[in-house]
Amino acid sequence: MGCLSIDTDRFATRFEEFSEIGATDDGGVNRPALSPANKRARDTLIEWFQSAGLAVRIDTMGNIFGRRAGTDPDAPAVMTGSHIDSQYNGGRYDGVVGVLGGLEVLETVRDENIDHKRPIEVVAWSNEEGVRFQPDMLGSGVYCDVFDEDYAYARTDDDGVAFGDALSAIGYDGDAPCSADDLHSYFELHVEQGPYLEREDRSVAAVTGVFGFSWLTVTLTGQANHAGPTPMTMRRDPLAAFASITDRLRSITATTGSDLVATVGSVDVWPDAINVIPETVEFTVDLRSYDDAVVDDAVAQLHDEIAHAANREDVEFTTEEIMRVNADPFDQSCIDTVTNAMERLDCAYTTLVSGAGHDANYLNTVAPTSMIFVPSVDGVSHRESEFTEWSDVVTGTNVLAETIRQRATE
Amino acid sequence: MGCLSIDTDRFATRFEEFSEIGATDDGGVNRPALSPANKRARDTLIEWFQSAGLAVRIDTMGNIFGRRAGTDPDAPAVMTGSHIDSQYNGGRYDGVVGVLGGLEVLETVRDENIDHKRPIEVVAWSNEEGVRFQPDMLGSGVYCDVFDEDYAYARTDDDGVAFGDALSAIGYDGDAPCSADDLHSYFELHVEQGPYLEREDRSVAAVTGVFGFSWLTVTLTGQANHAGPTPMTMRRDPLAAFASITDRLRSITATTGSDLVATVGSVDVWPDAINVIPETVEFTVDLRSYDDAVVDDAVAQLHDEIAHAANREDVEFTTEEIMRVNADPFDQSCIDTVTNAMERLDCAYTTLVSGAGHDANYLNTVAPTSMIFVPSVDGVSHRESEFTEWSDVVTGTNVLAETIRQRATE
Repeated sequence: MGCLSIDTDRFATRFEEFSEIGATDDGGVNRPALSPANKRARDTLIEWFQSAGLAVRIDTMGNIFGRRAGTDPDAPAVMTGSHIDSQYNGGRYDGVVGVLGGLEVLETVRDENIDHKRPIEVVAWSNEEGVRFQPDMLGSGVYCDVFDEDYAYARTDDDGVAFGDALSAIGYDGDAPCSADDLHSYFELHVEQGPYLEREDRSVAAVTGVFGFSWLTVTLTGQANHAGPTPMTMRRDPLAAFASITDRLRSITATTGSDLVATVGSVDVWPDAINVIPETVEFTVDLRSYDDAVVDDAVAQLHDEIAHAANREDVEFTTEEIMRVNADPFDQSCIDTVTNAMERLDCAYTTLVSGAGHDANYLNTVAPTSMIFVPSVDGVSHRESEFTEWSDVVTGTNVLAETIRQRATE
Repeated sequence: MGCLSIDTDRFATRFEEFSEIGATDDGGVNRPALSPANKRARDTLIEWFQSAGLAVRIDTMGNIFGRRAGTDPDAPAVMTGSHIDSQYNGGRYDGVVGVLGGLEVLETVRDENIDHKRPIEVVAWSNEEGVRFQPDMLGSGVYCDVFDEDYAYARTDDDGVAFGDALSAIGYDGDAPCSADDLHSYFELHVEQGPYLEREDRSVAAVTGVFGFSWLTVTLTGQANHAGPTPMTMRRDPLAAFASITDRLRSITATTGSDLVATVGSVDVWPDAINVIPETVEFTVDLRSYDDAVVDDAVAQLHDEIAHAANREDVEFTTEEIMRVNADPFDQSCIDTVTNAMERLDCAYTTLVSGAGHDANYLNTVAPTSMIFVPSVDGVSHRESEFTEWSDVVTGTNVLAETIRQRATE
């Protein structure tokens, strides 16, 4: 038989309409988890699920599922999906491509009268981005038993509002159990959020796994003093140590492992005055590689640099690894299904490892999982200017359709 | 005749009592300008001025003067003093030593029945520290015509309260004109706020001048992106450029001039998230030397480093010199008067250049001026742990007494 082919116009119309919800002036969307705009997006999604003939359920974490029954009432479901919450002033593709793409696949399966044994579900996970409630990926995390629901409900935003209260406030504290009891496999279509597909001029990738990472917080404590009368030789300046350590991260990435990336993203200086030598500098380090040993080595080298700089500047230091996640290879049979679909569709494809975490990581702990990436122009994500060529979105969604058909019918 | 000798016990009792006003648990004081604690300190000071027989006046900037008439009713006044506002949770010596020391000198002059031709005034300047209202040294600045009074009144604190409104709210918007119409000379006793006196084991110093400085703000703008999927080679990371520039400041101080000090005190990173490559980094640089050409050279070298790092990291940059003050040599005859007093008192003394600015800098523009420094233990200032041995405070105040006597009687 020929390959499934989605309805490009229907998909594009829906995508444009969805992009209007919480739209920003600069072409992005502002729909953080459980915000009014996120509620409107949820309402719209459910309306579309229902009009597509899907059985809708909302679980106790507010995850939204649309289900199409299979011919075998006892078979576990093949699931696809992603998320519809956004960064503050984020992009319109991140997450949405996977959710609306999944819906489009289910409509195509219906239109083509595909006879599938297994049920197929499309899901929108709650609070993937983690910008309003930390940690991120709360909805899929509870579903996969990574977090207790009580823990998730108690997470608060910057205004002290708990996730559980915000969820019931928008009416999305559903009744369905939030647990992965009956899952055959999971496939997530997502934008790459990196430059590789564009650089290699490919339209789509099978994702073979996700980088492991270490998140560290470092505190350097010296002695605040007046910037004028304190000679350079008598300073205990934590900011000088910080600058040296951060500068050396480039050397660590250059020598430790070819795929290692290192980022200092957050810095807090106290007392933060133009004419006062700082007393404390707190900063974060994000170290990632697909090789856990490379992350280990980078953490060790970072500690050496911190100790060396702190000794030279005569400042105290503490370090804490606040999160450590090992590299996460996806299921080979799922990767093969995606690859085979790309072959059949004759796509310009490749395979990639993802530098960013996704709901698929948690799903991978409960069911065979893989992902499909489409290109991010200029590698940009988490910004209003995030963009993916529509032809690439279509290619990725056709790959998803073929993948889901294969898995649901086999 | 012998030298004047202050009443050590009277001075110590007053100093301890004054230190209770706005006292913090860790031995400092919290008396920012025009705060309730600053008002109580003002009230106490006026009470003491009056009981010392001084004619008190409060000018339109809230500067408080205590005046002892001389035998020549037409002679310009010899003035001494400093400030009684503090940093937030600052030290008890900064400023207070000069104000209460001046009061003690005037009481000693009275007790010893010194026959002085010129009037002698002791002053407490408003808003020297500049922590609540910027810029600092507002009271002496208006007095010396550096700032317009309207400008000073309109300065607002972080809550939007204007200086003029805060001044009238505590009842210190006085009637006396704020201008230096009738001034013979000015001498300010102050803690060093640096390590040199302690390091050279001296009790007191004649201050020959004050460092010039440049204050710069630098903004680096790159491209925010996800810390995971963005390879090192494709980043436009302003924080990497910032770290490199800050690290190189050490090389600039090592090669540009022996007295150059360079400080990065304030840093602001956006969006400031652990897993996002920053988009912008704003930071400040404070460059000081007693040689204006050295400051010029350091500014030029800093610009080179910024341009070089920005080019390498592919980030945009802007720099602004928000303040530039030239080195300020004090009046040689005033320096000589202080030096002669130290000689007569047989002190362990030296001469110093101040790295920090003082009200004396503005007074130096309207009348012959010098300063007297006493040691700061460990060079610490602007902190609750700020400390000066009492014997050194006494030595410095005796030098001030001799200086004032010399100038008021000559």
